This record gives sequence, C-alpha cells and structure tokens, in this order.
Amino acid sequence: MHASTNDTKLLFRQTYDYIITRIERGELKAHDKLPSIRLLAQELRVHRLTVFRAYQLLKQNDKVYVKEKSGYYVSPDFTEHVISEYTDRSPITSSGHLKNSLSEIQQVPVIYQFSQSLIDPNLLPNLYLSEYVKKVFDIYPKLMGTYSSVQGDEELREFLCQYMKRHHSIQLTVSDLLITTGGQQAIDLISRVYIRPMDFILVERPTYSAALDIFRQQGARFIPVDISPEGYDLEKVEMLMKQHRPRIFYMNPTFHNPTGYTVPPDQRKQLVELAERYRCLLIEDDAIHEMYFDQPPPQPIFSYDTDGWVVYLRSFSKYVAPGLRICAVIGRPSVIQPLITAKSLADNGTPLVNQKIFLHYFESERIRQHLEKLRIALQIRKEIVEEELSTTGWSWVSPKGGFNLWLKLPEELPVEELLKESIRQSVSFVPGMICDPLREMRSWIRLSYSFVNEGQLRDGVRLLSDIARRF
Amino acid sequence: MHASTNDTKLLFRQTYDYIITRIERGELKAHDKLPSIRLLAQELRVHRLTVFRAYQLLKQNDKVYVKEKSGYYVSPDFTEHVISEYTDRSPITSSGHLKNSLSEIQQVPVIYQFSQSLIDPNLLPNLYLSEYVKKVFDIYPKLMGTYSSVQGDEELREFLCQYMKRHHSIQLTVSDLLITTGGQQAIDLISRVYIRPMDFILVERPTYSAALDIFRQQGARFIPVDISPEGYDLEKVEMLMKQHRPRIFYMNPTFHNPTGYTVPPDQRKQLVELAERYRCLLIEDDAIHEMYFDQPPPQPIFSYDTDGWVVYLRSFSKYVAPGLRICAVIGRPSVIQPLITAKSLADNGTPLVNQKIFLHYFESERIRQHLEKLRIALQIRKEIVEEELSTTGWSWVSPKGGFNLWLKLPEELPVEELLKESIRQSVSFVPGMICDPLREMRSWIRLSYSFVNEGQLRDGVRLLSDIARRF
Repeated sequence: MHASTNDTKLLFRQTYDYIITRIERGELKAHDKLPSIRLLAQELRVHRLTVFRAYQLLKQNDKVYVKEKSGYYVSPDFTEHVISEYTDRSPITSSGHLKNSLSEIQQVPVIYQFSQSLIDPNLLPNLYLSEYVKKVFDIYPKLMGTYSSVQGDEELREFLCQYMKRHHSIQLTVSDLLITTGGQQAIDLISRVYIRPMDFILVERPTYSAALDIFRQQGARFIPVDISPEGYDLEKVEMLMKQHRPRIFYMNPTFHNPTGYTVPPDQRKQLVELAERYRCLLIEDDAIHEMYFDQPPPQPIFSYDTDGWVVYLRSFSKYVAPGLRICAVIGRPSVIQPLITAKSLADNGTPLVNQKIFLHYFESERIRQHLEKLRIALQIRKEIVEEELSTTGWSWVSPKGGFNLWLKLPEELPVEELLKESIRQSVSFVPGMICDPLREMRSWIRLSYSFVNEGQLRDGVRLLSDIARRF
Repeated sequence: MHASTNDTKLLFRQTYDYIITRIERGELKAHDKLPSIRLLAQELRVHRLTVFRAYQLLKQNDKVYVKEKSGYYVSPDFTEHVISEYTDRSPITSSGHLKNSLSEIQQVPVIYQFSQSLIDPNLLPNLYLSEYVKKVFDIYPKLMGTYSSVQGDEELREFLCQYMKRHHSIQLTVSDLLITTGGQQAIDLISRVYIRPMDFILVERPTYSAALDIFRQQGARFIPVDISPEGYDLEKVEMLMKQHRPRIFYMNPTFHNPTGYTVPPDQRKQLVELAERYRCLLIEDDAIHEMYFDQPPPQPIFSYDTDGWVVYLRSFSKYVAPGLRICAVIGRPSVIQPLITAKSLADNGTPLVNQKIFLHYFESERIRQHLEKLRIALQIRKEIVEEELSTTGWSWVSPKGGFNLWLKLPEELPVEELLKESIRQSVSFVPGMICDPLREMRSWIRLSYSFVNEGQLRDGVRLLSDIARRF
C-alpha cells in the first residue's frame, strides 16, 4: 500500500496548502471561521480524516486557532503580515505560487554545470549554422520586419506535417499545429487553458520540475504516477483515473526527464484507451525524440490516438539549434484553438525569424549527419560519467537515450547539504526532491552529461564524488 | 455625473459576470443559493442596489430563480450544459475568460489592412538589416546553440541602461531590466504576477484591447479613466485611487493606443505623486516613443519616479525590426524579480538570437537615419488618410505621432455592421467598442495608417468611406 500512503500524504498536504492559499489571498481573514471538516472534505473530495489532520497541523503551526465546540478560526498573527502587506498595497506582492526551483539552481554560475539538460553549444555545427542563416535572409529579405501569424508560420507547419507523416505515419493538416517558443511555453499555455484551480491532474513521479511549478501556479492538485524502467503500473493509472477523474495526465514517456526511462509500445496503446475511457487528456511531452543511442524509441503515444485524446508537444530545435526555441503543439483543432487564443494573449506569436531559420535548417541534408554525430558524442559522455561513478556505490539504470542520469545515492547522504557544498565548489546538479510532486525522493539526483565537455565531465564528476565521500 | 454613471454601470456588469463565472466554474451548482445581497455587496465593495440589479438581470436571463422570502438560487437549466460538459470531462473546456478580440479581427486576411498597428515591412531597411544579421553571426558563431539567461542577455541590458541614461537621464543597472518577447508578453507577465482575481485596476478608456483581454483572463475588475487630448482628469484619478485602492494603473501615455493622445509633462509628475500616495503601481506602456512627427514627446513618467512606483514597458524593436520582438520591462529589482520567475515559467527566456541581432542593429549609426525617414513616411501616410477623410464628416484629433487615427463616426452609423461589410469588401479596422473597458464607444473606430502603402491607403480609405456612405 505504498502508493496509497503517498496519495493520502499528498491530499493532506494539498488540503493544508489550500487553506494557506485562501488566507494569503485574503479570502479568509483573521478570526474568519474555516469551512467545516465535513464540507471541505466534500468540496475537495478527500476523506474527512485528511481534512482533520490538515486542520490539526494548521493549528500546530499557529495558522488557526480552535474555539471549543465551534470550529477552527484564522489566527490573527498569521494574517497580520498578509493583511498589512495587502492594505499597504505594496506592489511587490506577487502570487504566492510563483516559483521555479530548477531555474533557481541553473542560474547559479558554476564550472561543472550538471543541472542543465541542454546540448553543449560546441557539439553543434556552428559554422554551418551561421552560413545557413545568411542564406535564409537572402531568401526572405523582409524577415526582420514581418510578424508571424499567431498559430505559426504556415510554411513551417506544412513542413512539420510532412515530417510527422514521414517519420511517424501520422496524417496531419496545418490547423492541427501551433508553434510555440520552446516546450516550456507549450506546457504553460496548456496549463492556462486546461487547468482550473483545484483540478486534479496526473503527473509522473518523478517528472520535469518546471512543469510542476507551472501547474502549481495554476492551482492544480497532483496525483503522482510512478514511472519505472518498465513504464507505469497501468492498473494503478486506471484506478486513479476512475477515482479522481483528472482533466489531464502530463507525461514524458520517451527518454523521460529526469530518469531517462522509455514507456514500452504496448503501454502506449493502452494509455490511449484509458484516456478515451476516462476522458483524460494525455499531454505527451516529447522533447528529445531523436536523441537515442542504439535504436530509435517507440512511436509516440500520439500515433495511437484516433479520437483526439492526446496533445503532442514536440520540441524540435533542442538538439539542432536550441537557441531558436521551436516547439510544435499538435492535436485536434478543437483542442488547439483555445491554445492559439492563449498564445495570442501571451506573446502574439513566436518570432518569424526563428521559425524560418529553423525550417530551412531542419529540412537540410546536413542536419541528418549532425544528429548521427551528436548521438555518438552524447553516448560517449554518458559512458564517461558512468565510468567515473562506478566506484561510488551509487546506482542507476543506464539510459538508452537522452541527456541525464538519474542517480540513487545512499540513504544517509544528505542531498541538500551535498548540493550546497557542491555549488560552493562549482559543481551543480538537480536534487530529486524538486522533480517529485510529493517533494520527497531525497536520495536521488539528476546529473546532466550533455552540457559540458568530456574533460570537464570527468573532472566534475570526480569532484562531486569526492565531496560526497567526505560526508 | 457622467463618470459616476459609468462606474455604476461597470460595477453592475462586473457583479453580474462574477456570478456567471462562479457558476461556470462549478463553484455554484444548480439549486445552490446565491450569496445574500448584503454579503456580496460587502465582499465586492459595491452598493447593495448594484447587487440587487445584477441579481434581477440574472433572474430575467433565467440564470437564477427566486424563492419567496428565501433568496436567489442557481437555475438548473443554465448549469445543465455547464455541468454535463464538466462531468463529460471534455478536454476542450477552456477557461471562460479566454478571448482576444483584436487578434480575431487581425487574423482575417484583407487587402486594406487598417487593423494592424504595425510598420509596413517595406518601410524598413531590409537589405541593410540582412547584411547586419550576417555580421552578428560572424561575431557570435555559437549564437544558435546558446540559451539566453531568463532575465535577458546582459550585454543588451547593459546597452539599454546606457541608452536610458543618454536619452532620458535615467540611471539604471542591469538588474532593473527584464527582456521580454514583445510588449504583449510584458503585459501578460505583469498581469499574472500583480493581479489577483477580483482586484480593481485602473485602465484608460479607451485602451489597448489585447491588454483588456489579458487582464480579463486574470479576473481583474476595471475602473476606467477617460483619456483626452489634455490627458486625464487627475482629480478623478485621485478619487478613484482613494475609493477603490487599485493595485495597478495600466497606462499608455505617449502616442496613446488607440487615440494617439499624449499626457502632458505636468500631469506625468503628478501621477507619480498619486501613485506613491495611494500605493498604486503605474504600468507605463511606451511602445512607440520615437515615432513622433514634429517634436519628441515628453520624458516618460518613469523618469519622474524616485520611489519605484512605475514599471516602464519599453518596446524597442517595434519600429526598427518588429520581427525580433524585443521589449524591456524596467523597474526596481523587487518589482522585477517576481516577473523574472514568471518569465522563467512562461518560456524560460527570450531567444538569444533575437536579442543579439537587435542589440547590434540598434546601436548602429544607420538606425538613426532610418528613424528619421520612418517618421516622415508615417506623417505622409497620416496626412493621406486625413485628406481622404476630410469629406466624410467624421471627426478626429490629428495625432502628433504614432500609427493610428481615432475616428468618431456619426452616431447613427452602425459600426458593427460597417465592419462586417468592410471585411466583405477587404477592408478591416478596429471597432472602438473592443478598446473600451465598458464595451461601449460604439461610434468610434481605430484606423491604422502604418501598415499599408500610400496607394492602398488612399484606395482603402475611399472604399471605406463609400461603404459607410451607403449605410
């Protein structure tokens, strides 16, 4: 019953956060009575005991106080700073849920940058790329003065339709695609359109931490689905869909971030059936599809979809020209249309310059050769790290593609302390905790081998294991 | 008492919308009792009579029903489709407030495009621009492989600090700036960070309609401030700030969109004092500062700010290389910091390619010559339109800069019909109604003269006035 313990814990924490948020937003003021346990349990669809325990913790933390035989009331001490800050109208009051833990770590400048799941710029064919850009500006001399349509350049969308047909036998039209500025924006737009506060959503455990932060900002409640080298426990997934009726399942089934796992083909087909049955939109984030080592990954879940229950987020630029930031959101027009409106409000369209450069580069012959070389370079880097780590006693499943190793450290090693000390010595990595919707997984870390060169990789990993050994 | 009639109308509509939204979100279900008039009046800080009238209209429209001596209840007919749609879990249910009226009009392809407040690409020095890009790629050969920091390229921010000092005597450091993908994204980030649902915000009447749509999406309540060729009625502004304690005032005081008006220098100084006194953050949107005809506009309101009550949105690329989409959000670090987090979630940083190209182009000598030519070209276009319109009987205040004419049509002319018929004949413009937070101003239109060439301008305006004459 490990999973259901997690569920209860999660619901408990979310109930606690829900009350805190309402107080912070000023919806519940000092001395206001909290909703009755029965009522809130009903509203949040959780067990009364869960609400009871959340209220007990609120009381312990002096957020609320109890009047005998009457109920729970908002403590004036807690609201004091909230209210004074609010009535002060300090303009620096921002929404309470705004945080990006990954970005905070990545912004710290270090020599051994293992927290960036990005391609080393030196692995890109830079000279060729620059020459290429010049050609593109000869083809479109007015490129710098022209806006893209909100949905994205039609020539690019047309090309991507053909690409999807050729590589994945998926038949599309240009109205099925929306171009966004990177995959992150795609996740954000989906979150804004399809998640309402307090909605249940399924997320992998662990998952991409910035996605969790985006969903948190929108007020979502997480239902974690464990991912393993064999994929998901589909019976568990079905049970969760039945029980919570989540609006969406955000997943990253191919060279999963952070673990590197890939969900097998038979599960892909079944997931689409579950999505249809329980009317849960699958958000398939496919950021590095072509970054495999020995053989290509299975076809996208999207390719099994006939009824429109999958939205496919395909980042294309990440391994050819990451600076361009080109992602396609693909789905049936009724799902895409509200996202186009959201995009029109968010930035009115991805710059045309980026789309045209990407299009012409991506359709060139040269790109295929580049990808071949890149796969080999990444595999070598991965093997270097694995070699350096072989004496540490840490464990991992060797990934078949992607940019990261997901490492299990000894239980007694305090990862937060390790990160602090590592950063002090110019090594950074991602602590597993921020990838976990339950904020646990304290013995795991994500180490990206894609961003620094082979020499630095060797030195940095040695340094990291030395630091760890001293703990 | 014209203004206060507007206020009441507005609050009435917002109260009505508030209930509708709560029903649509499923917070109020069929046969649920509405909050009592007294309670809701208190909560929304409106008069009881306003709530009473909103409830009456809800009843008239069959959204709610009345039980004698008991109160108002949600009508099952109205919630039926909402609920079934919700339990169906159709993934195409998007947030009710998602709309971009301007974008909808602009997306209709027409020959005489007067709804785009953008520079005609033919007015840009395209050949020079292309040559320029090639140089930039020689300077930064790895540009396509490199991500920008979330806050924006430091070299660009450094340059913009110097620019602001040179042109506006404003002393800044790089931490005061955030680079966004166009001004629209800047407004969106501010909205997400600084507006909570039901917050009062001041907006000009009329104003940029996409900004209204962005604020609506966030659940803001509008308090309109009339803008005239003489600026605002500052006594009225003070009264509104005192009464409603708005968190922000979104304004566009220089070659205002859609009217072209410019707020005079003495008011600029006083506005900063009011902002300080009532702790209301001024969002100064300055998109086309250098697009003046005879003389430069007054210094930005931001230049009078000493205490950090102004956030300055300066679009730079709009008139030099609009395809690049470069805007700077400028303010004190405590205000900028949460916006950086929001930016990290929204798209993780504006592409570096765009920032570097812009930087090197914008600091070139050539750009100054280009601006000089552009001003003359725009003034000529404006004069062509004014000449063509001189026999229509329509009235307007001739703008001293910018891209638009704000035209008052005869009261009896049905603008919505006119727009439909015009689009049928391949002319488009922006109806004043969508620029009005009260959704009135039915006799006004915005006509942009910046996007089409002189010949088309003449033909299109003639066609438009012919169509109007036939009504």
